[in-house]
Amino acid sequence: MILFNQQQTDKRSQPAPHQLSHPHNHFLRLIPLGGIGNVTKNMYVYEYRRSSGGEISDILIVDCGIGFPDEAMYGIDLVIPDITYLRDKKDKIRAIILTHGHEDHIAALPYILPDLKVPVYGTRLTAALAEVKLRDFGLQNHINTADTSQILHFGPFSVEFVHVTHSIPDATNLIIRTPVGIFYHGSDYKFDWTPIDGQQTEVGKIARVSSEGILCLLSDCVRVESPGYTLPERIIEDTLEEELRKCRGKFIFTTQSSNISRIQQAINVAVRNNRKIAFLGRSIVENVDVTKKLHYLEFPDIFVVQERELKRYKPSDLFLIVTGSQAQPNAALSRIADGSHKFVSINPGDTVIFSADPIPGYENAVHGLIDELTARGAKVAYSDIMDALHVSGHGAANDLALMIGLTRPKFILPIGGTIRQMRRYADMAKEMGYKDNQILLPGEGDVLEFDSMGNVRKGENIDLKNVMVDGLGVGDVGNVVIRDRQTMANEGIVVVVVPVEQSTGQVTAEPDIISRGFVYMKESTRLIDGAKKVVTNSLRLKKGRIFDWQFVRKQIEGRLEEFLYKETHRRPLIISVVVEV
Amino acid sequence: MILFNQQQTDKRSQPAPHQLSHPHNHFLRLIPLGGIGNVTKNMYVYEYRRSSGGEISDILIVDCGIGFPDEAMYGIDLVIPDITYLRDKKDKIRAIILTHGHEDHIAALPYILPDLKVPVYGTRLTAALAEVKLRDFGLQNHINTADTSQILHFGPFSVEFVHVTHSIPDATNLIIRTPVGIFYHGSDYKFDWTPIDGQQTEVGKIARVSSEGILCLLSDCVRVESPGYTLPERIIEDTLEEELRKCRGKFIFTTQSSNISRIQQAINVAVRNNRKIAFLGRSIVENVDVTKKLHYLEFPDIFVVQERELKRYKPSDLFLIVTGSQAQPNAALSRIADGSHKFVSINPGDTVIFSADPIPGYENAVHGLIDELTARGAKVAYSDIMDALHVSGHGAANDLALMIGLTRPKFILPIGGTIRQMRRYADMAKEMGYKDNQILLPGEGDVLEFDSMGNVRKGENIDLKNVMVDGLGVGDVGNVVIRDRQTMANEGIVVVVVPVEQSTGQVTAEPDIISRGFVYMKESTRLIDGAKKVVTNSLRLKKGRIFDWQFVRKQIEGRLEEFLYKETHRRPLIISVVVEV
Repeated sequence: MILFNQQQTDKRSQPAPHQLSHPHNHFLRLIPLGGIGNVTKNMYVYEYRRSSGGEISDILIVDCGIGFPDEAMYGIDLVIPDITYLRDKKDKIRAIILTHGHEDHIAALPYILPDLKVPVYGTRLTAALAEVKLRDFGLQNHINTADTSQILHFGPFSVEFVHVTHSIPDATNLIIRTPVGIFYHGSDYKFDWTPIDGQQTEVGKIARVSSEGILCLLSDCVRVESPGYTLPERIIEDTLEEELRKCRGKFIFTTQSSNISRIQQAINVAVRNNRKIAFLGRSIVENVDVTKKLHYLEFPDIFVVQERELKRYKPSDLFLIVTGSQAQPNAALSRIADGSHKFVSINPGDTVIFSADPIPGYENAVHGLIDELTARGAKVAYSDIMDALHVSGHGAANDLALMIGLTRPKFILPIGGTIRQMRRYADMAKEMGYKDNQILLPGEGDVLEFDSMGNVRKGENIDLKNVMVDGLGVGDVGNVVIRDRQTMANEGIVVVVVPVEQSTGQVTAEPDIISRGFVYMKESTRLIDGAKKVVTNSLRLKKGRIFDWQFVRKQIEGRLEEFLYKETHRRPLIISVVVEV
Repeated sequence: MILFNQQQTDKRSQPAPHQLSHPHNHFLRLIPLGGIGNVTKNMYVYEYRRSSGGEISDILIVDCGIGFPDEAMYGIDLVIPDITYLRDKKDKIRAIILTHGHEDHIAALPYILPDLKVPVYGTRLTAALAEVKLRDFGLQNHINTADTSQILHFGPFSVEFVHVTHSIPDATNLIIRTPVGIFYHGSDYKFDWTPIDGQQTEVGKIARVSSEGILCLLSDCVRVESPGYTLPERIIEDTLEEELRKCRGKFIFTTQSSNISRIQQAINVAVRNNRKIAFLGRSIVENVDVTKKLHYLEFPDIFVVQERELKRYKPSDLFLIVTGSQAQPNAALSRIADGSHKFVSINPGDTVIFSADPIPGYENAVHGLIDELTARGAKVAYSDIMDALHVSGHGAANDLALMIGLTRPKFILPIGGTIRQMRRYADMAKEMGYKDNQILLPGEGDVLEFDSMGNVRKGENIDLKNVMVDGLGVGDVGNVVIRDRQTMANEGIVVVVVPVEQSTGQVTAEPDIISRGFVYMKESTRLIDGAKKVVTNSLRLKKGRIFDWQFVRKQIEGRLEEFLYKETHRRPLIISVVVEV
């Protein structure tokens, strides 16, 4: 992990030791609990102390998002930030501020808010979406609504929202004023000058605060590898219109269900071409519902049909907006493709539009889904073969450079990207004249300590765990369980049951062997018989009463592992069970 | 799956029924055992019958490659073609012809050749690489060498090799003459006019046979979604040279180890810049060894150093060519990145070049590896951020169209691509004037029956299984085992052991519960105790001697599943074991 650049502090301006303990030297500690070296699971702690090592005075938290499990985290639904560090400091936390309504910024609230019990703030749509998330878990917390003209005060902090363009309306960056200086919290953004909702990024506000002097810019960096500027969202609409005109059957449109601007464009095209719209899939229905109520989505209700009414319409009169752009197994599009959707099936003449790129790791699943739809006769359009079906909500290299140019911060800290993207962002900043010691590349849990003399230094590293959510369990699946799942996934399991007479401590019958995911047992009697013999032989060597079953079990497992590897070149998980009777 | 286009035969030229049984109407059945709807696992059967439904006279097989398991095939190393269909026809098989030396065309030979025992033919390098594969399995079979000037005769078939450009030297397509007409077997190719070995595609030969009239073109289609022509391999060398000149430390180069042309270019750059070369990783060492011996790779031996000698050289004098471009867990580059390589570690100043794109499904692993290398201080270059680090060995749309233009076949059959790529290739052919009934889109195992009247019709479908290789086992892991692995991967396993007195048939003690990959047992005593209670209660209801243990076990498993789902929302695999004592 990159902890820091080689030079961690600005040597030239480093204060003499006596200055460090100067009574007027305040400290702001910035602690990423997520979103560093990692695109998702955003959560940042701003912690103010009146002196280094002194007592914490106030804490402000930005975002509270979920992360996606990596492929090796078998069976895990999602990952949330580890808030162990905050547990004994709850009374210092003044607020959680949400930058926008995407899952990787708000969706850990239902897991964390009941524990932290602090007020939460966001712009209108963001607050509404966060409340929907909480309601899904039966939580009734109120999220406070703020708008971009307000300045919120939390103890020594003040927070001003800056409207930015992204792939969801009401997205913001934050101007956070602290006793040591101004932080520009530049979470997800791009500079789209023709946004679908007409609301441009408030560059004037950014420029104004920049003239006061920004101590540190935290900036989105996930698309730094793409040159130029990210294309405007608006180009999608023409492509859609063109495809729709060529379509004689149903028109099926999928995108990420939080991409409200994209859904608005799809609706615009449907309405202009007089097609009835159906929304299929829980998250689309939920998001459309809440955004429509708040007027972030606009369309005449008369165009909407319910899924059970679809059969009344000709295919060429329909425009379906469906979940499943990442080929999620139970999403509407996956069920349509495999023929299990109750109301919709694919026929030749239908067109399916993927208006989203596969998330890394989902490429194969998405390509498999495209194949399935193609095989059923649909024309499938996706961005590998057609331009302008998807643009990112994140800024490309030039957008990111423009933000640096606008904010002109003393220090720069890339967030929301992988290590290689952070590093590349650093290279770009250097090309813009920044020095190594102005570019901060912490790892997750690394504390950055800013002082009021304008210095920054690396504090301690807070040990962060992956808090994994699996079904109803939060954090109960740890590394041991995951390791067992990995072994069983690749090699299966073998269970050996040894019956033992309690009074004599002697083995009373032949051991039993059961396996799952290892070999097809019915066709492997020779192997299983061989394995039984290995176990029996290990036990035969024991004379008299066995006291140390722990030791004997280890021995059985060891011998069996050796035998099975020799025979199959597989290493299943082996458990031996001694049953005393 | 797409079995065929709507119109399967050319209605206008369809013979009258009496013609179908005409004694001079011969039949050639083309059966893809792999490589259809699937980029890998190439194996095609050409089967000649003197009349439809009559006895098979002769069989010719083209290629014998492995496939890569999809993500859902947990723990599977590779997949091979299912040759069940051929088992009772072995005496009819005249030969296996190999088109080139890539794994997905030759690497199933060690599994299949001992069974089929037929002569195998390939060009010089292809034959040598196939022999290396066989030797790895202790097999001493000889592969016959042919060159592109020869015509080989196998009963009613004759085969002529056509040299084509691809990412490995000595790659060929095949002209297969049969009693019903000429087939052009266009497996992997692109038109590279400046190939590294100077050997261009033999377009003259293709044009000549085209003037005789080609009945059917089988064509690579995997890059049909990319417009234009695939760039020439040669452009890589300049990029490499430029990167090398900027590198103050070690220069580490990785590509697919079968990409001999790429390795030659890396060597050229190393030699020109006077850097010592080390080859790290078994498959690179093996491939370099055999290709150098046959003079398909050329370099002065004096430039090569062994890995144990690396420490004697300054980093800036070294050029390492290593395995692991797909982040394979035990490959050299992965071990270098995680610090476990015996002789090589990463230091700031080193450069790592990925001269290969991630195979679909491996993107996350490759990006993780890039992050690891970056974190250790390497500059990492890969094609997301730098052009001209990788070009494909497969033709893009225009290459593929050029092949259609050169061969001007009556029928066209895209191979070696997914369903969506086959469909897109079909669209391209239609734009070139082909009719639906001239474009063949079979699924795996679909039989295409060509007759000597110039017709083709769909025959039966041969049911093909996924023959999975796991360790030493070939085909012993079937769907049941894979399904169990999937369940255990995502939900874990719970084993219930019930001890029963043999003579009375009564439960003698409390059931024991063990789980793996489900919950961390030490911290879940409440849950496990609850589960035990559920099992005990199911058993308590049984009065007297239990005879039908099968039934009782099913009942225990059912109740336990319900209980665990309610408590955790997980559905682990449950096994109950009754131990009679």
